[in-house]
Amino acid sequence: MKRLVLLMHCPDKKGIIAAVTNFIHQKNGNIVYIDQYVDRVQGAFFMRVEVEGVFGLPSFERFKLDFQKELGIHFEMQCSFYLADLLPKMAVFVSKYDHCLYDILAQQRSGKLACTIPFIISNHNDLASIAEQFSIPFYHIPVTKNTKEKAELKQLELLQKYEVNCIVLARYMQILSSRIIDVYPSKIINIHHSFLPAFPGAKPYHSAFQRGVKIIGATSHYVTEELDAGPIIEQDIIRVSHSHEVKDFISKGQELERVVLLRALKLHCERKIMTYNNKTIVFN
Amino acid sequence: MKRLVLLMHCPDKKGIIAAVTNFIHQKNGNIVYIDQYVDRVQGAFFMRVEVEGVFGLPSFERFKLDFQKELGIHFEMQCSFYLADLLPKMAVFVSKYDHCLYDILAQQRSGKLACTIPFIISNHNDLASIAEQFSIPFYHIPVTKNTKEKAELKQLELLQKYEVNCIVLARYMQILSSRIIDVYPSKIINIHHSFLPAFPGAKPYHSAFQRGVKIIGATSHYVTEELDAGPIIEQDIIRVSHSHEVKDFISKGQELERVVLLRALKLHCERKIMTYNNKTIVFN
Amino acid sequence: MKRLVLLMHCPDKKGIIAAVTNFIHQKNGNIVYIDQYVDRVQGAFFMRVEVEGVFGLPSFERFKLDFQKELGIHFEMQCSFYLADLLPKMAVFVSKYDHCLYDILAQQRSGKLACTIPFIISNHNDLASIAEQFSIPFYHIPVTKNTKEKAELKQLELLQKYEVNCIVLARYMQILSSRIIDVYPSKIINIHHSFLPAFPGAKPYHSAFQRGVKIIGATSHYVTEELDAGPIIEQDIIRVSHSHEVKDFISKGQELERVVLLRALKLHCERKIMTYNNKTIVFN
Amino acid sequence: MKRLVLLMHCPDKKGIIAAVTNFIHQKNGNIVYIDQYVDRVQGAFFMRVEVEGVFGLPSFERFKLDFQKELGIHFEMQCSFYLADLLPKMAVFVSKYDHCLYDILAQQRSGKLACTIPFIISNHNDLASIAEQFSIPFYHIPVTKNTKEKAELKQLELLQKYEVNCIVLARYMQILSSRIIDVYPSKIINIHHSFLPAFPGAKPYHSAFQRGVKIIGATSHYVTEELDAGPIIEQDIIRVSHSHEVKDFISKGQELERVVLLRALKLHCERKIMTYNNKTIVFN
Repeated sequence: MKRLVLLMHCPDKKGIIAAVTNFIHQKNGNIVYIDQYVDRVQGAFFMRVEVEGVFGLPSFERFKLDFQKELGIHFEMQCSFYLADLLPKMAVFVSKYDHCLYDILAQQRSGKLACTIPFIISNHNDLASIAEQFSIPFYHIPVTKNTKEKAELKQLELLQKYEVNCIVLARYMQILSSRIIDVYPSKIINIHHSFLPAFPGAKPYHSAFQRGVKIIGATSHYVTEELDAGPIIEQDIIRVSHSHEVKDFISKGQELERVVLLRALKLHCERKIMTYNNKTIVFN
Repeated sequence: MKRLVLLMHCPDKKGIIAAVTNFIHQKNGNIVYIDQYVDRVQGAFFMRVEVEGVFGLPSFERFKLDFQKELGIHFEMQCSFYLADLLPKMAVFVSKYDHCLYDILAQQRSGKLACTIPFIISNHNDLASIAEQFSIPFYHIPVTKNTKEKAELKQLELLQKYEVNCIVLARYMQILSSRIIDVYPSKIINIHHSFLPAFPGAKPYHSAFQRGVKIIGATSHYVTEELDAGPIIEQDIIRVSHSHEVKDFISKGQELERVVLLRALKLHCERKIMTYNNKTIVFN
Repeated sequence: MKRLVLLMHCPDKKGIIAAVTNFIHQKNGNIVYIDQYVDRVQGAFFMRVEVEGVFGLPSFERFKLDFQKELGIHFEMQCSFYLADLLPKMAVFVSKYDHCLYDILAQQRSGKLACTIPFIISNHNDLASIAEQFSIPFYHIPVTKNTKEKAELKQLELLQKYEVNCIVLARYMQILSSRIIDVYPSKIINIHHSFLPAFPGAKPYHSAFQRGVKIIGATSHYVTEELDAGPIIEQDIIRVSHSHEVKDFISKGQELERVVLLRALKLHCERKIMTYNNKTIVFN
Repeated sequence: MKRLVLLMHCPDKKGIIAAVTNFIHQKNGNIVYIDQYVDRVQGAFFMRVEVEGVFGLPSFERFKLDFQKELGIHFEMQCSFYLADLLPKMAVFVSKYDHCLYDILAQQRSGKLACTIPFIISNHNDLASIAEQFSIPFYHIPVTKNTKEKAELKQLELLQKYEVNCIVLARYMQILSSRIIDVYPSKIINIHHSFLPAFPGAKPYHSAFQRGVKIIGATSHYVTEELDAGPIIEQDIIRVSHSHEVKDFISKGQELERVVLLRALKLHCERKIMTYNNKTIVFN
């Protein structure tokens, strides 16, 4: 007895839900979750279904092929199928900040973040001991202006060797080039330490302090070529006041960063997110 | 028995608190509230004091003069003195949206917003009936590109005639020129329907929707010459999701706007705000 | 072209969605919103549908009858049908507090609360002038221990005369007896000034202050016979600190009460709420 | 150059602030933070001061003695003095849940929780490997009804041996007796997984689900003899809806528990909390 997750979108038409649910019943699948969303302005239909059934790998492949043949072509669907117990392989990129890394490793280890973590990459050596503490391979790949291409090729090599599905930039202070981004569309998750689109780019806490805001935020988003402009997955905020200095903004903000990033990672690993027109649809 | 509110700031030095509290005791004042804040980076000291005592108008004037003479000059203080029962006179500027106006009038009427409202000004006639409902004079002053100067002169005339102390732009869809702003520094309160500095200018809900944010906000700030860039008084947020359309953003946002604006107005009318370096210090 | 809202629940079975959507298509209805929820523990299915079509009153009646005949009996459905432009008639009960009343009347007047308000009932005369300001009939029905039965009979008479559909207790400081509650099951909405189930009953702000909580709340719920124990519609909170006195709790709380009550009323008037097992299902 | 933290409260009188600041200036101390709070109802004065100066251990002892002699007796003060770089020693008690433990250890290790952690005590062996991962001694002390006294004596022995200053119950599923509580008044910090005083005792998420709340909370408080009734340090909440099952309440709640507990621990370790009349004063 296995669980299968299906994410799909297509032009909105009558009869999609009925067709999909009928198909699943024919395959002796039991729908344990179904949610859909219609974007009426765009005329687009989105659906997430969880199905329980006898899905060995062969019947899972069969299910996918038949689904595409019987429904996918007719409704012009774009589909993703996942076996729930095949956890995504997530690579973690870090620099020197440890708060997000600790959280990711602890939550993964205690079973609350449904993924495997094949390795950690960093442009610095500072966090190697944490990797060791959790017995996870740590690759130190320094990045300078001149070595960036070489570094990214080495990163890609590791990503391919370990068959990585998605990447989390856990306060990785480097900008990825399209060399990597293009290989992982809607698969690279970043945490930005501001309430985007306010304060994109570097030093957002300093800018927020300078502006005298009363609330600071954190934003987790998929990485696209345009810096800090990819589809937003999750945001949250915390109140500040005139009595807080920049260092208080940073310390309060870091509490927020790890919470917001973890929420986004959980949603991604549980296959609850679709992207469309540079936005996310989050089935929660 | 009257209550006096004192707001002051000056360069940070030893002995300010002691000097002020001693002065007040000499004047037979009873301190019922005292709060201070030191900006160590700027070396600036801020204080708010509420004093109960026998302050008729003459003794109030005496108090102010003596304070300046004995302390103000020595400590290079900038001070504001208010008698708590002399309510500020607040003019309300509106256009067509009624949600903030209703809230201001209702809260003022029920004694929760400590001010008087001598009149309402609008560039449209739509909300005249609400003014009438609350028996408040309503002046319809249309504004076009060509009549803007004339309109503002008329507005100024009314502001002076009624001896107005502060102005609230309750979704007034016009930009005030320096002609008015310069007369009311840190005295004109605007509500902007976004989480500034994200989405300044026009149509912020449309921009927020376009960007796919997961949280929308509202910001109340003092008006300065640079559009939507004045000192922020109060901000708050509300969650949205992919399932909300622009009209939902607007409707959820309007709930927020009135709450955030009212909080800012209350703080201002209770003389709890100081401005400094384009930021607010809010004694709460 | 009219809009119809359908709320239904029934035991969870295969094929409900398909059956309902097919029925609507046969009736030439256009589904503009559909959302469903399955309570797997209880085996219960809930759905809300908005349909656009040519629904004059006769065809609306026809729709209801056919729906019951073709689907309702088979699936053991409990259904409610509403024409969206037939606004609910909501009676407002108040005592002496005006903040919720002002908000309800202003929001209703500006079209943001989709109901009509045939009259206001109060056990005191204090708020009569607000009713007058909004030109709404005001009935002063004093309630004492001895006159309670007589008072409630008079209230019922008014409710029936005006064909009232629902009641809001906008800080009405009296407890209704089953005489009225039984006539309006899941139709009487109360605002309780605490985060229920903490601090039920009288003086919750005082109790919250006494307990030293760091957050206070407000709860809007349907009234049932057990005091403050009916299905919760909406809750929200605001932070407090040691520096706030009981009067600050009350003043911050009142800001919250009106916001939370209004949200609940909007949800109710837009027919987005179902009740089940003393809980609400809120389609949002 | 050392930093000293002074927490004090006493009956409210004129001249306390001046007396304290004068004393500190005489001792060549530089006040880098001062905040005070007056409870006017109780007539109680509270103050927190941070002072920089040449405080070796002898001069620190001298400072305390002189302070008591010159001010303490006169003003009837209750004072606590701390050297900021003498970190509190905090023992961690756990059972089987690992989310709070991981967070405490990670935050402590990365310098964000200013304490040392001499050991972990658990009534189960499940989390021993985490202790090992962080190289912290782990004591497995099983507790049954019959062995409770013996277990607590063993716990006390360890607490004394390591000169522990405070204890965190990081989801420790046992109730401490007065045997331990009396030794650590306002020094034992618990995290309760509900918005107290709603849902005290066992299984609060199940009760919250049963009640159909729209918001769940977590509460960190000092442990007193009455269960879940000690002074509240920090609370926070997260929204839930009808679509969430008990397991969602638990999983969302655990995210909250660790955040709320960490905030409380940081406040405690930074000596920002005073307790009074079963409430906390939090200087933030």
